[in-house]
Amino acid sequence: MANKGPKVSRRTALGMLVGGAAAGVAGAKIGLSTSSGGDLAAIAADRGLTGDQAEGALRTFVPGGEFDEYLIFASGGHSGQMLVYGVPSMRLLKVIAVFSPDAWQGYGYGTDQGDTVLDEGSDPAKSDALRWGDTHHPAISETEGQYDGRFLYINDRANGRIAMVDLRDFKTKQIFDVPNLQTSHGGCFVTPNSEYVHISSMSPSPVTDSGYAPLSRYAEDFRGFSTWLAIDQETGRFVKDKSFQIELPPYTQDLADAGKLSSYGLGFINSYNTEMATGGVMHDGQIDPAAALEATATKNDYDFLHIIDWQKAEAFVGSGSGVRTLNGMRVIPLEAASGEGILHFAPEPRNPHGVDVNPTGDYICIAGKLDPNASVYSIDRIKAAIDSQDYEGTDPFGVPILELSSVLEAQVELGAGPLHTQFDDKGYAYTSLFVDSAIAKWSLGPKAGHDADAFQLVETLPIHYNIGHLVTAEGDTVSPDGRYMVALNKWSIDRFPPVGTLHPQNFQLVDLTSEPMTLLSDTPIGVGEPHYVQMIRRDKLKGVLRLYEPGTDPMTWSRSPFAIAAGEERIERQGQDLHVYMSAMRSHYTPDVVEARLGDTVRFHITNIEQTPDATHGFAIPGLNIQASIDPGEVVNIDLTLDRAGTFAMYCTEFCSALHLEMQGWLQVAP
Amino acid sequence: MANKGPKVSRRTALGMLVGGAAAGVAGAKIGLSTSSGGDLAAIAADRGLTGDQAEGALRTFVPGGEFDEYLIFASGGHSGQMLVYGVPSMRLLKVIAVFSPDAWQGYGYGTDQGDTVLDEGSDPAKSDALRWGDTHHPAISETEGQYDGRFLYINDRANGRIAMVDLRDFKTKQIFDVPNLQTSHGGCFVTPNSEYVHISSMSPSPVTDSGYAPLSRYAEDFRGFSTWLAIDQETGRFVKDKSFQIELPPYTQDLADAGKLSSYGLGFINSYNTEMATGGVMHDGQIDPAAALEATATKNDYDFLHIIDWQKAEAFVGSGSGVRTLNGMRVIPLEAASGEGILHFAPEPRNPHGVDVNPTGDYICIAGKLDPNASVYSIDRIKAAIDSQDYEGTDPFGVPILELSSVLEAQVELGAGPLHTQFDDKGYAYTSLFVDSAIAKWSLGPKAGHDADAFQLVETLPIHYNIGHLVTAEGDTVSPDGRYMVALNKWSIDRFPPVGTLHPQNFQLVDLTSEPMTLLSDTPIGVGEPHYVQMIRRDKLKGVLRLYEPGTDPMTWSRSPFAIAAGEERIERQGQDLHVYMSAMRSHYTPDVVEARLGDTVRFHITNIEQTPDATHGFAIPGLNIQASIDPGEVVNIDLTLDRAGTFAMYCTEFCSALHLEMQGWLQVAP
Repeated sequence: MANKGPKVSRRTALGMLVGGAAAGVAGAKIGLSTSSGGDLAAIAADRGLTGDQAEGALRTFVPGGEFDEYLIFASGGHSGQMLVYGVPSMRLLKVIAVFSPDAWQGYGYGTDQGDTVLDEGSDPAKSDALRWGDTHHPAISETEGQYDGRFLYINDRANGRIAMVDLRDFKTKQIFDVPNLQTSHGGCFVTPNSEYVHISSMSPSPVTDSGYAPLSRYAEDFRGFSTWLAIDQETGRFVKDKSFQIELPPYTQDLADAGKLSSYGLGFINSYNTEMATGGVMHDGQIDPAAALEATATKNDYDFLHIIDWQKAEAFVGSGSGVRTLNGMRVIPLEAASGEGILHFAPEPRNPHGVDVNPTGDYICIAGKLDPNASVYSIDRIKAAIDSQDYEGTDPFGVPILELSSVLEAQVELGAGPLHTQFDDKGYAYTSLFVDSAIAKWSLGPKAGHDADAFQLVETLPIHYNIGHLVTAEGDTVSPDGRYMVALNKWSIDRFPPVGTLHPQNFQLVDLTSEPMTLLSDTPIGVGEPHYVQMIRRDKLKGVLRLYEPGTDPMTWSRSPFAIAAGEERIERQGQDLHVYMSAMRSHYTPDVVEARLGDTVRFHITNIEQTPDATHGFAIPGLNIQASIDPGEVVNIDLTLDRAGTFAMYCTEFCSALHLEMQGWLQVAP
Repeated sequence: MANKGPKVSRRTALGMLVGGAAAGVAGAKIGLSTSSGGDLAAIAADRGLTGDQAEGALRTFVPGGEFDEYLIFASGGHSGQMLVYGVPSMRLLKVIAVFSPDAWQGYGYGTDQGDTVLDEGSDPAKSDALRWGDTHHPAISETEGQYDGRFLYINDRANGRIAMVDLRDFKTKQIFDVPNLQTSHGGCFVTPNSEYVHISSMSPSPVTDSGYAPLSRYAEDFRGFSTWLAIDQETGRFVKDKSFQIELPPYTQDLADAGKLSSYGLGFINSYNTEMATGGVMHDGQIDPAAALEATATKNDYDFLHIIDWQKAEAFVGSGSGVRTLNGMRVIPLEAASGEGILHFAPEPRNPHGVDVNPTGDYICIAGKLDPNASVYSIDRIKAAIDSQDYEGTDPFGVPILELSSVLEAQVELGAGPLHTQFDDKGYAYTSLFVDSAIAKWSLGPKAGHDADAFQLVETLPIHYNIGHLVTAEGDTVSPDGRYMVALNKWSIDRFPPVGTLHPQNFQLVDLTSEPMTLLSDTPIGVGEPHYVQMIRRDKLKGVLRLYEPGTDPMTWSRSPFAIAAGEERIERQGQDLHVYMSAMRSHYTPDVVEARLGDTVRFHITNIEQTPDATHGFAIPGLNIQASIDPGEVVNIDLTLDRAGTFAMYCTEFCSALHLEMQGWLQVAP
C-alpha cells in the first residue's frame, strides 16, 4: 500500500521554449501577419506562459463553431440552479433555473410554468413558499448503467426536495417536496435502468404529529428515511404512488450510490453521527466547545454503511402488508426493513463522506474524512456475509451489522481528508483529499483488472485548494471514459483576482490520459457553490431540441389548448375575464394594445409563432411584476388580476432583431 | 468614405503548422513527457486547431495563480444580475446579485441585508415587491474621466430602477426606484467626476394622478424624464434630495452618454418614435400589421438627439424658482428646460440606438440602426449653434432644434444596422453592425489625431452573429487602452453545442493591437442576456477588500451594534423576542441549539468570527425559509416569527472545512 507513484514535476523549463522561439523555428510559424510574429512558442513566451501552461492552453481551447467533447452538469449549490459547462474548454454554456425563479428563462415571474413548478414543489405544510434550494448532487438517467442523456435529477439538500430537468429542452419540469425529509443528502443516484432515483434524509426528522420533539427524545422520536422515487419512463417525472421510503435510525445519512452489474439491486448509504449527538455548546449561558457536534459526533471509531436491497423493498411494498403510510408516502418500518433482509449495516471508519461503487459493481469504496484510508468492500463478501448471517450484532434499533472483517476487501492509505471517489476505464480510482489538497490515484483489485498491483496508491496530484468532490468522464456509469477529470475545489485562495469578500471556487481540469496526470486549467466558479457534477459525452445528448412544434406547452410536450397560429390572434371578454390570445414575432406582438378595466383579470395566452431556432421573445409588464421568456413554438400563460389603474408599457426583453426596441405595446387599465 | 480596409483572411493554412510538427522542431519542445510528444505545434495539430485558433488559445489562456489584465462587468439582462468576467481568459469570475435575491451571497432569503436592499428598492406605489430586473447598462464611477474602480451603477430597464454595487466587496448596497419612470434606457452613465449618474425613461409615463391615461392623449398626458441622481462621494449612494429630473416630450428616449473634456457639462440622449406612435395592430378584431410600431415609429427621416446642459440644470434647480416636485423628485418643467438653454435638440437619422462621445469629448457619434452611416456631431459646432441660436425651428413641445448642417461634422458609411460605438487610444471608433454581423473600424477626425484620413472606414471584422453592444478596454473613459474589444453577440447559432431551446449568446474577444483586428475566442453566455458591459483594468480595483473588520455591517461599513466576539455569545429573552447572539466559526455555531416557543420572534444576530479571507459560512433553517451567507467579519441579522411548532435543523451551506457537515444545530419551537 505504499505510494509507488513518481513525484510529479509541475513545471517545465521556460528556457527551452524561449530558446525555441529565439531560434525562429520555421515549423511553428502559423502564417499570420500579427504583431507577435506568429510563432507559437514566441506567442507563449510573449505572454509569459511556461511549457506546461502553453500545453494547457492548446489542450483546452475550443474554437467557436467546434463543440466540446463533454458537458458537465454542476449543482449550483445554494444558488438553487444548475450549471452546464463544456469540457475541455470549461466554458459556462448555461445556467438552468431549478429551485430559483429566473426571469431569463421560461420560469419567469407570474407565468404558469414557473409558478406551477415552483409552487407544486413547495409543500405548504413543510415550509413557506420556497424560491431557493441548496442543490447538491445531480444524477443523469441511465439505461443499462449508461447515461442515456434524457433526464437529470438533483436534490435540494436544504429542503428535502428533488427536481427533474428535461434534457430535451434543459428546463425544470418538476420539483417534488419529499415527505418526511427535512434535509437531504443521500443522492441523487439513479438505479441502472432509472427504475428509481434515490434520496435520503440528512438531519433526521421528528416523526411526532406536531413536528416538534425535544432533542432529549432524539433516539425515540427522530428518524431518517431512504426514499426510492419511481420514474415515469416516458416523461421522466416522479410517480409518488409507485414510490416508497425505508425508515432508518436517526443517524446522519450522508452520501449514497447505486449498485450496478455485480451489485445491481442494491443501494449504499454512508452515515455518521451514529453517536446520535445533538450538540449543545451553550448551556445555562456557559460555553462548552467540547459539546460541539464536531467533537461529539466523531467519537465512535466506526459508523455504519447502510446496505439496502431495493428489489426486496419493492417486493415488500408490493405485497402491501406491514407498510405504513406517512404523509402520503408508503414507508417500510425499520423493524420490517431489518427483519426482511432489506437493510443491513456494515461498520465503516468514522464519519465517512463518499460511498462509490466501481464500474463493474464489485467494489464499494468508502472515503472516511477522518481516516487516511480508502476502505474497499467487495460485493461478493457482502453477499456471502448476508447469506450466512455473518453478523457482529445489531445496532440499538435492531439492524443487523455485518462482521467487518468478512466484508472488507482492502484498505489503501491515501492521505488526509479523503472524501469522494471516481473511476476511469483502466481500473483506477481517484479520491479527493480535502485536507491534503490533492487527488490520489490508486488501483482497484482483480475484478477491475488489477492483480499483482491491486489496491495500491499510484500517484498524488496537488490541487488548489481543498477539493470536495471530483468527477471523471462518465464516471458514475458502468463504462467510464477516463480521459478527463474535474476537481471541485472549495477554496481558490491565490488562484484568481479578488472579486469581493466571497471568492470563486476553482474547478481544475485534469488530463487522465497522461502518466502522471496533468493539470490543464483552472476555472473560477462565480455562481453558487457547486457540490457535485456529472460529466457526460456530448453526443449522448441526442434528444436536445432546437425548436418546439408550433403551439407547444413544454410542461406537457403537447399542443397547448391556448395555442394560436398567425391570424388567430384575438381578445375575448368573458365577464371580468379578458382572454388575450397574443402572438409574438419579430418585431411585434399581436395584439399590442390591450384595453382593460380595473378589477378585470387579464389572461394572456402568448404563442411565439417563430419557426427559427433561438428566436426567443420576452414579455414583460414592468408595473405589474410580469416577466416571461417564450421560446419559438412555445405557449406561455399569464393570469393577471388588475387591482391598479394605469397605462402600463409591455415589451420584449430579448434582443430579437434590429427593431427589437420597437417590440412593445400598452396595457391600459381604466379606472 | 469608401472602405479602405483590407479584406481579412480568417484562416491560415494548417499545413504549415502540421509541417512544423512533422519536422519535429526541437525549439518548440516543452519538455513534458506527455503522450502528445510535447511539441506545441503537434499538440495544436492533434487537437485539430488551425494556426489562428492556436494563437487564440495562447493569447487568451490565463493560468491559475496569474490574473487577468482586465475585468468586464456585464449586465445580466433579464436575469437581474451582474456578471464579472476576466479578460483575456473570458472566465466568469462572479455573478453579483443585484435585483434578484441569491441565496449564495449576502442577499439571501430572510436576511436584513437582502430584504432591506430589495424592499427599499421597490416602490409599492409603482409595483408589487420586485425580485427581478432587466439590467442593461453598467457604468463605473469616474474621477477626472477615468474609471476609479470604486462604485458601479446599473439600471433595471423594466422597472425604471437603478442599483449601486460597491466594488470594495462586490455587493449591491442600494436600489433606487426612480420616481416618474416606468421603464428606463438612457444610461447609466456617470459624469466625469461622478457628480451624477444619469438615467432616463424609455416608454414615457402617464403624468395623470391615477397613472392612467388613454393612448389617444399620448402627446398631452405622457412625458419622458431625464434623471440626474446625485452621488454621495464617500458611500457611492444616491442622494435623492440633491437629484433632479428634466421633463421631456413623450418620445422614446434611448441610449445616452455624458460629455467629457471638450464637452464636459453636457449630456446626450438619443430618441426615436418622435412620431409618438402607440401601436394598435388589432382594431375591432381586424389585424393591420402596418399599424405596428416597427412601421409607425419609423416614419420620420429624423429623430432628435437631446443635448442637455446639466450644469445649467443644476443651477436652475439650485435657484428653486420654477421647479416642480413630482412624486418626491424635483423636476424642471419642459418649458423651463427649453427656455433656459437646458435642453436642445439636433436632428439625427431615424431610430438611432447609440450615442457615444469620443475620448477627447469632441465628437458625438450616432449609430442609427435604420441608417448605414455613423453620424458625427462636433461639440464645437454644437456650442456655436447654441450660442448663435442657429435653429431650424422647434418641436411640437417648444424645444429648439439646432440646424443639422450646422452641427453635423461627418457621416461615415459603415454597413447595415449600426448600433453602438466604442473607441481606442489611436483615434479610431468601432461600431457594431447588427444586421451585417460585423464590427466597423473607422477613423475619427482631426481632434482625435486624424486629418488626411479623417472619418473613413478602415476595416470590417465579421462576428458570429448579430452583435448588439460592444466594448473596448476602458472604452468609456477619456483614455481608452485599445488592446481588447468584446463583441456582445445576440445570436450564437452554430457556435456552441445545443443546450436546450434557448441558446447562449456569444461574447467574442478581439485583439485590437493587430492590423487587421484578430478574433481571439468565443465565449458562450449561459446566464441572462447581457446588454452592455464595462471593461476596466484590474489594477484599478485597488479597493477590493479581502476581509471585513471584525463585526462589520457591510451596508454601513461600520461595526454592527449586534456584533460579538468569541466568548460573547448569548441568548437574551425580552418578552416574546429571543435575541440570539451567535458566532460562526469552523466548524460550529455557538450557540448551536436554540429553544423557543410558538409565537416567539427569534432575532438571530450572527457574527462570522473568522479572520481568514473567504472563510464564508452559510446559515440555513430550511423549514423556515431562511438562507444566509456570512463572510468573515460580517454580521447578518435575521428576524423570524415562529408560527409553527417543530424541531428544525440549521446548518452551514458553505463547504467550509473537512467537518463542514458537522456544522449544524437545532432550532426547537415547542408548541
